[in-house]
Amino acid sequence: MTYTAPIADMQFVLEGVADIGRLASAFPDYSNEIASAILDEAGKQASEVLAPLNWSGDQHGAVLENGRVRSAPGFADAYAAYTEAGWQALSFPEEWGGAGLPRALALAVIEMAQSANMSFSLSQMLTLGTVEALMAHGTPELQAAYLPKLVSGEWTGTMNLTEPQAGSDVGALKTKATPVGDGSYLIEGQKIYITWGDHDIAENIVHLVLARLPNAPEGSRGISLFLVPKFFPKDDGGLGERNDVRPIGLEKKLGIHASPTCVMAYGEGDGAKGWLIGEENKGLACMFTMMNSARLTVGVQAVAIAERAYQQALDYAKERRQGQAVGAAGPGPSAIIDHPDIRRTLTDMKAKIAAGRAICYATGVAADEAEFGPGDKRAQAKRREDILTPIAKAWSSDRAIEIAYSGILIHGGMGFIEETGAAQHLRDACIAPIYEGTNGIQAIDLAGRKLSMAGGAALTELVDDIRATADACSGESDARFADFSDRLNAGASAMVACAEGLRTRMSEAPAEGLAGATPFLKLCGDVVGGWLLIKGALYALGQEASNPTYYGAKIQLARYFSETVLTAAPALVQEVNVGAALSLGLSDDALTAA
Amino acid sequence: MTYTAPIADMQFVLEGVADIGRLASAFPDYSNEIASAILDEAGKQASEVLAPLNWSGDQHGAVLENGRVRSAPGFADAYAAYTEAGWQALSFPEEWGGAGLPRALALAVIEMAQSANMSFSLSQMLTLGTVEALMAHGTPELQAAYLPKLVSGEWTGTMNLTEPQAGSDVGALKTKATPVGDGSYLIEGQKIYITWGDHDIAENIVHLVLARLPNAPEGSRGISLFLVPKFFPKDDGGLGERNDVRPIGLEKKLGIHASPTCVMAYGEGDGAKGWLIGEENKGLACMFTMMNSARLTVGVQAVAIAERAYQQALDYAKERRQGQAVGAAGPGPSAIIDHPDIRRTLTDMKAKIAAGRAICYATGVAADEAEFGPGDKRAQAKRREDILTPIAKAWSSDRAIEIAYSGILIHGGMGFIEETGAAQHLRDACIAPIYEGTNGIQAIDLAGRKLSMAGGAALTELVDDIRATADACSGESDARFADFSDRLNAGASAMVACAEGLRTRMSEAPAEGLAGATPFLKLCGDVVGGWLLIKGALYALGQEASNPTYYGAKIQLARYFSETVLTAAPALVQEVNVGAALSLGLSDDALTAA
Repeated sequence: MTYTAPIADMQFVLEGVADIGRLASAFPDYSNEIASAILDEAGKQASEVLAPLNWSGDQHGAVLENGRVRSAPGFADAYAAYTEAGWQALSFPEEWGGAGLPRALALAVIEMAQSANMSFSLSQMLTLGTVEALMAHGTPELQAAYLPKLVSGEWTGTMNLTEPQAGSDVGALKTKATPVGDGSYLIEGQKIYITWGDHDIAENIVHLVLARLPNAPEGSRGISLFLVPKFFPKDDGGLGERNDVRPIGLEKKLGIHASPTCVMAYGEGDGAKGWLIGEENKGLACMFTMMNSARLTVGVQAVAIAERAYQQALDYAKERRQGQAVGAAGPGPSAIIDHPDIRRTLTDMKAKIAAGRAICYATGVAADEAEFGPGDKRAQAKRREDILTPIAKAWSSDRAIEIAYSGILIHGGMGFIEETGAAQHLRDACIAPIYEGTNGIQAIDLAGRKLSMAGGAALTELVDDIRATADACSGESDARFADFSDRLNAGASAMVACAEGLRTRMSEAPAEGLAGATPFLKLCGDVVGGWLLIKGALYALGQEASNPTYYGAKIQLARYFSETVLTAAPALVQEVNVGAALSLGLSDDALTAA
Repeated sequence: MTYTAPIADMQFVLEGVADIGRLASAFPDYSNEIASAILDEAGKQASEVLAPLNWSGDQHGAVLENGRVRSAPGFADAYAAYTEAGWQALSFPEEWGGAGLPRALALAVIEMAQSANMSFSLSQMLTLGTVEALMAHGTPELQAAYLPKLVSGEWTGTMNLTEPQAGSDVGALKTKATPVGDGSYLIEGQKIYITWGDHDIAENIVHLVLARLPNAPEGSRGISLFLVPKFFPKDDGGLGERNDVRPIGLEKKLGIHASPTCVMAYGEGDGAKGWLIGEENKGLACMFTMMNSARLTVGVQAVAIAERAYQQALDYAKERRQGQAVGAAGPGPSAIIDHPDIRRTLTDMKAKIAAGRAICYATGVAADEAEFGPGDKRAQAKRREDILTPIAKAWSSDRAIEIAYSGILIHGGMGFIEETGAAQHLRDACIAPIYEGTNGIQAIDLAGRKLSMAGGAALTELVDDIRATADACSGESDARFADFSDRLNAGASAMVACAEGLRTRMSEAPAEGLAGATPFLKLCGDVVGGWLLIKGALYALGQEASNPTYYGAKIQLARYFSETVLTAAPALVQEVNVGAALSLGLSDDALTAA
C-alpha cells in the first residue's frame, strides 16, 4: 500500500500535452527544471509522510468528543510537516506568502497529496477555496487579517453551503444573517456536510457560510456570503475569543473516514459573529468564483485516487502467481500480470488515468492563462477552462469509480477484504462524483450553459483543436499513427452532431435536451481524452529516440485508448440524440410498477 | 429501506421472455397460477422477514467468539421461518423432500431473498450447491444420511475450494486426505473464504472440501472431493460427536458483513473425518457440476442487489424535492424524479436490471430443459445454458456495480452516508464479480470453451434466435417497433464478427484472443439483453390491450435499451478484435514507469 508519485507522467502531461510552455510570459520564473525539483520534493513527502497514514486513517477515522473533533492519529504532525514545506501555497501570490507559480503545477502537487491520502488532502482543498474567495471578494481588512494565516496553512478554511433541504438547490437555504450595526452579522443556522468543519490539526478554522439577510429576495438571488472564524483573530495575529460555531455531529460515511464531515451549528449559544464577503445577496456568485476551481480539484482528486488504485493493483499483479499464462516459458505459476485479461485491465486503468490527468492539467493551464496570460488570449483560455471543467470533474470521477473497481477485481477475493486496502480506494472515490455539484449537474452545466455561451465558441474552438491534431497525425508516416486521424475526426464529428442536436432541443424540448446531458458529457470526455493522449503521442514521437521504452509506451497507450474508448465514442450519438429522451416516456407509475 | 418483490416483472420474464411454457411436458404440475401463488407468498416473507434485517445485519455483522460464529441478531429466527416455509427446497426432487418445481421458478424466489438480504441468502446458495453435488455424485448412503436434512434446511452446506495460494487456480491446493481404511479419510489443511463456514442458524453444517489423496497427480487432475460434517449424524438422524473442523478466522470485508466468511481449519486437533464424493481425483469435475449452477445464482444475485438499489433510489427520487424541474407546473421544488437526468438514470437502472433478469431466467429455463426436457431438446438446451451462464454471471454483476453506484448518485450527498443504506448495496454487490470465478474467468470461459464447443453451435443457435426476433419485429406495423430489427441484426453481426476473430486468434495468437475476452462478453450481454427485452416487447404488444400502462412501459423500456445500449454494442467489435490486444504491447516496465 505504498505510493510513488508518477513524476515523469506528470511532467509529460504538463509539457507535452497541457502545453504549460504557453504560460512562459505570464510566469517568467517558471521553468521545467523548477517544476521538476518541486515535484521530486513534494512526491517524496507524499510517499513518506502522507501515504503511510492513509489506511490507518481509514480504520481509525475522526472522532467527535466533548464538542471537538479529534483527527486520526498522526494527522496533526503530518499537517505540520506539509504546511511547513509550503506545498499548499505554491500557486498563491507572493504578496500573501505564496510562491506565485502556475496553478497547473500546483495541481500536480495536489494530485500527489490526494493519491497519498485523500482524507488528509481535503483539509487543504477547502482552504484553497477559502483563500480564493477572500482574494477575490474580501475587504482589505479581512484579507490582511486572514489571508497570511490561511496561505501559510496555520489556519484552515471550510465552505458551508448545504442544509438538509438545500443540497443541489443551494437557493433553498435558510441560515440567517442579521446585521449588528458594527459591520458584523449574527449568523444563525445549521449546515451539513462540512468537510474538516472541526479538527485539531491547526489552531483556527475560517468558515465561509452562505446565509440570508433579513428581507433578502427568495431563492438564489437572496444569498450572501459570510466569513465566520472559529476563534476571532487579535490585532497581533494571535487568537482571541472563541466564536459560537460548533460541530454537533459527524457523519458515518462510505469512505474518506479520516476527513471529518461535520454538522455545524452557528449561534446556538451566545451568538455567532461573521463578516460579509462581497456584496449583499451576491453570495452565490462569490461561491461560484471558487466553484470552477474546486470542481477541477475534484477532477484531479479522482485521477489521484485512480492512480493509487492502479499502483496497488499493478504491484499485486506482479507479485501474485496463479496458473500458467499462455506462452509462459518456465514451469510453475505465472505472475497474474502475464495473463492477458489482467494486462488488458491494467492498461485500461492506466490509459483512463492518463486521459483524466491530461484533461485536468489542460484545464489547469487554461485557468492560468485565463487569469495571467497575455490579454488577447485570456477570453479564449477562459472559454477552454469553462468547457473543460465539468468534463474534468465528472468524466474523471466516473472513470475513477470504474478504475477503483477494476483494482478490486485484479485482487480477486483479496480485493473484497478490507485489510488489502483495494476496497478503500473505491469507497473513497465514491464521493468525487457527488460533491461540488453531482456529476448530473456537471453534465447539465456542459450541455446547457457551456455549449451555448459565446455563441457556442467554446465547443467550436475545442473541435478545431481536435481536428488540428488529426491533421498533424495524417502527416505522420509512422505506422502507429495510421488510424489516429480517422478516430479523432469521427469523434469530433460526433461531438458536433450532439451539440447541434442538444442546442435545438434545449430550446424546443428542453427536457429531451437535459436527458441527453450525461451521455453527452461521457462522449466529450472520451473524445477529448483520446485527443489529448494522441497529442501526447505526437510529442512522444519527437522524444522517442531519447528513451524508446518510455515514449514508445506513451504512443502504445494512446493507440489502446484510440482503438477502444475513442473508437466507440461516436456510437453514443444515438443515445444522446434519441435514446436518452426515450426515458421521459416512462412515467412515475411505469417506473414503479413491478 | 423496504423491499417489494417485483412479482409482475418476474412473471413477465418467466412467461413472456424466458418461455417457461416450453417446460410444460417436463413439469406437468407447474402452471402460471401455481407460480403466482408461490411468488406472492415468498415475496411477502422476503419483505417482512428478511428485508428488515438487511441493514442491521450489515451494521452488526457476524462475530467469531470462543471458536464459534455468532450470526447477526434475528438471523437464526429468520432462517427458521424461511426454511419452515420450504423456499429453499422448491426445485429439489420430491424424493428428498423438495417440491419438484422448475429451477427457473426457484431462481425468482432466490432473487427475492437476495434482494431482501443478500448476506442471509448466501447460506441458502451454498446449501443448494451441496445438495446438487450430493445428488449427482454421492453414494446412496451419504445421500440418505445428508440430503433430507439439507433439503429441509435443518442443516446447511459449504464449499471449500480456496487456499491462500490456490484461488482462481484451484489446482494448486494442498489440503491432504488420507484413507483410514474404514471408507473414511482424514482431512488436513486450511481453507479460506468459506461462506457461512460456521454459524448458529442451523444445527449442523456439511462441508464439501477439495483435497489431495496421497500420491495424487499434481495440479487439477489430482484433486478429490470430500464431505466433512461439523457433527457426525447418528443413524436415527440426530447429531452425534463433533468433528475436528473449526473456524479460526473471520474476514473483515467490504460488504455482506452478516455473511460470515471463515478461515476453516481441518484436522488441527484430533483429526477431521470425511467421505469421498464421486471418484478419486475427479473432485474438480464434481465441483464443476454445481459451478454452472452457482454461477447462474450469482448472476441472479447481482440482479437482486441491483433491484434493491433501484427500489431505494426510486423511492428517494419520488420523495426528495430540489429545484424546479423544466416544465413543472406548480410553484415550489419538484421531486427530483421530475428532473430529466434523474428519470434517465432510473430508467437506465431499470432497463439493465430487466435485461439481466431476462438473461438469468432464460438461462434457468435452459437448465431445466437440459435436465428434464424432451430428449431431443436437451442437447441444444444444454448448449444454451452453457453459453449464457458466463454472460448471466459476469454481465449482470458488472452492471450491478454500475446500478448500485447510480443509486448512490441519485441520493446525492445522502448516498455517501452509510445510514441511508444506498452505499451498502454497492459494498454488497462488489463480491458478485469476484466469487464463483472472477468475471475475467467468465469471459475467458465464454471466448474460449463456450465459443468452440460443438463446432461453435451454441453461438450460431443464439444468433439465429436473435435474427428470428429481428424478423418478427420487421413484420410489425407498430411504429415503436420500427428500429428493433436493424438494431438486433447489427448486434448479431457484431457477435459473429467477434466470434470469428476470436476463434482465429485463439489458435494463431491465443494471448490476443484472451485479451479480447472481457469486451466480447460485454458485447454479448449488451446484445442478448437487448434481444430478450425486445422479445418481451413483442409479447407485451400482444398483451397491451389488457393493461396499456404496464405493457406499454415494457415496450418503452425495450426501446430505451435498444437506442442506448444495443445501438452502441457494435462499436465494441474494434475493441474486441483490435484494441484489446494493443494492451499486450505494454510490458511490465512500461506499465510501471511513471
